[in-house]
Amino acid sequence: MLTAADVAAARDRIRGHLRTTPLLQADASALQRDTPSRHAAAATVWLKLEQLQHTGSFKARGAYNRILTAAAHGQLTDAGVVAASGGSAGLAVAHAAATQAVPARVYVPETAPAVKRAKLADLGATVVAVGTKYADAYDAAMADIAETGALFCHAYDQPEICAGQGTLGAELLEQTGGVDTILVAVGGGGLVAGIAAATEGRAHVVGVEPATIPTLHTALAEGGPVDVDVSGVAADALGATRIGGIAHAVATRTGVTSVLVDDADIVAARTLLWQKFRLVVEHGTAAAPAALLAGAYRPAAGERVAVVLCGANTDPSDLA
Amino acid sequence: MLTAADVAAARDRIRGHLRTTPLLQADASALQRDTPSRHAAAATVWLKLEQLQHTGSFKARGAYNRILTAAAHGQLTDAGVVAASGGSAGLAVAHAAATQAVPARVYVPETAPAVKRAKLADLGATVVAVGTKYADAYDAAMADIAETGALFCHAYDQPEICAGQGTLGAELLEQTGGVDTILVAVGGGGLVAGIAAATEGRAHVVGVEPATIPTLHTALAEGGPVDVDVSGVAADALGATRIGGIAHAVATRTGVTSVLVDDADIVAARTLLWQKFRLVVEHGTAAAPAALLAGAYRPAAGERVAVVLCGANTDPSDLA
Ligand SMILES: Cc1ncc(COP(=O)(O)O)c(C=O)c1O
Ligand SMILES: Cc1ncc(COP(=O)(O)O)c(C=O)c1O
Repeated sequence: MLTAADVAAARDRIRGHLRTTPLLQADASALQRDTPSRHAAAATVWLKLEQLQHTGSFKARGAYNRILTAAAHGQLTDAGVVAASGGSAGLAVAHAAATQAVPARVYVPETAPAVKRAKLADLGATVVAVGTKYADAYDAAMADIAETGALFCHAYDQPEICAGQGTLGAELLEQTGGVDTILVAVGGGGLVAGIAAATEGRAHVVGVEPATIPTLHTALAEGGPVDVDVSGVAADALGATRIGGIAHAVATRTGVTSVLVDDADIVAARTLLWQKFRLVVEHGTAAAPAALLAGAYRPAAGERVAVVLCGANTDPSDLA
Repeated sequence: MLTAADVAAARDRIRGHLRTTPLLQADASALQRDTPSRHAAAATVWLKLEQLQHTGSFKARGAYNRILTAAAHGQLTDAGVVAASGGSAGLAVAHAAATQAVPARVYVPETAPAVKRAKLADLGATVVAVGTKYADAYDAAMADIAETGALFCHAYDQPEICAGQGTLGAELLEQTGGVDTILVAVGGGGLVAGIAAATEGRAHVVGVEPATIPTLHTALAEGGPVDVDVSGVAADALGATRIGGIAHAVATRTGVTSVLVDDADIVAARTLLWQKFRLVVEHGTAAAPAALLAGAYRPAAGERVAVVLCGANTDPSDLA
């Protein structure tokens, strides 16, 4: 069971390796289309600027915690570390491995864009392209660790990964002095699991997903993780086919709730963050503020809401 | 004489209208090409994320202070406010005027791009295009205020404008608990004047300019403001032809020093801020971190340095 104590231990372990990402208090009106009442005190909205983290996402927190935990237990060998990801998780593992001077092999499908592969290579990782689907890359990663004894870094469903991501939640509580609600995007659920464990009993965590990839939503409705179809603008980051087991268990225990947003609202939220705040985030990340914009989550008067901006591994060209 | 007391008064006046912009502590090594010595403690570098301010730059601080001061003295009439600027200063005045429900007329040269005019109009300003040079727009603005009695908001050389910009410096001192050095880009000098007044006796302010627009540099060398040639990547924001009188007086009194950076370093710093921090800034703003990157300013071991990121009114396409 992942708890706040695991997150506290992760925080001690990764201290000094990660950036403390800043908060920006947002004019609530800028993020909501309609204000419930002129007389109600507006909600207080904090944006947690985690997209400014090393390698452009929160994934660095989990990757460092996984790799430094292994190092502390003498489990880091010359075989190095392995990840299966063409996205932010791969970049994070490559970065953490490089600072620990161990080799990283990142498995990606052959469909992974050249620019993503180049970024991994720039960080010193060996990029291995296999098959046409993510599952092919994953299988190849499994074969690698079976053969070499390398450390596998899962994109979301490992205790050290979730505990690492949770350090964002602990940091947020400290920086704000407490919030009522935390809105966070959900893919495989490593981030939501960590944050919910870190803030258990102290904040209400709302998982936000595209309606086109409802992994958490479906699991909560059906009583357990099940496969869902994956599509839409945020599929590159939030496109896990089912919620992780750790995330489902923590979400159920801590009372995480789930809301869905449309792709149009995700796109609008990403554009708004640039136009009104000069913040660039990727589509998967824009799901969280989209919940406010679309009214999928409506804060009460005076509610203290934190919105996690979790990644910016995106091409900003279309924001011009 | 502009002093810290003027800035404190401005801070009280504009409180609640402006965003408190966050700080990001940067890995000093990410911003320096060479580290002086492995044994010397690295400098502490804070990035002040003022580009996240309303309308994308610090100019909102001065505009609000100018307009709210006039309002407090009953000097804000139906004739409204006037600015001459196709850039950030015009946007800031338009924004502040809209919240005070007074009309804003912004004079721009006919060469001003349609996208900039559209942004001003979106904020509710009346855009008036006159002549081919900035000086033509300025002259037309002067004719307007002579005829209508509207309030003129200078882009940099008015006490209320400089005091408003200075609130950034006061905020920075509070947030950091004190710094040794503040690096800040200089155009006409409103920002550097305000920050130097706000932090007089408490921090050393370094004005950074493109070598192609050395307004402050030349004034300090020659003992007073003189016209300089204007060119290069940062000319849209830093392209004043001479330093303002207030800036020169405050810089001389408080011991502001000046460094120059090349356009290539400005471009490199802007790219680096995106690649390593997912921060988007405009070229004029990138001059400040370029001083670290290029070694034009070299902090001592253990020095606490704040780098002001002052604007992001830029097209991010080329960062892809
Ligand atoms: C930017 C971003 N946000 C959210 C997620 C989803 O995170 P999780 O799988 O932990 O739910 C990812 C996963 O790659 C991501 O890159
Ligand atoms: C982003 C940005 N930085 C710096 C400046 C220069 O400011 P100042 O004229 O106060 O020196 C400007 C002026 O427009 C600006 O827009």
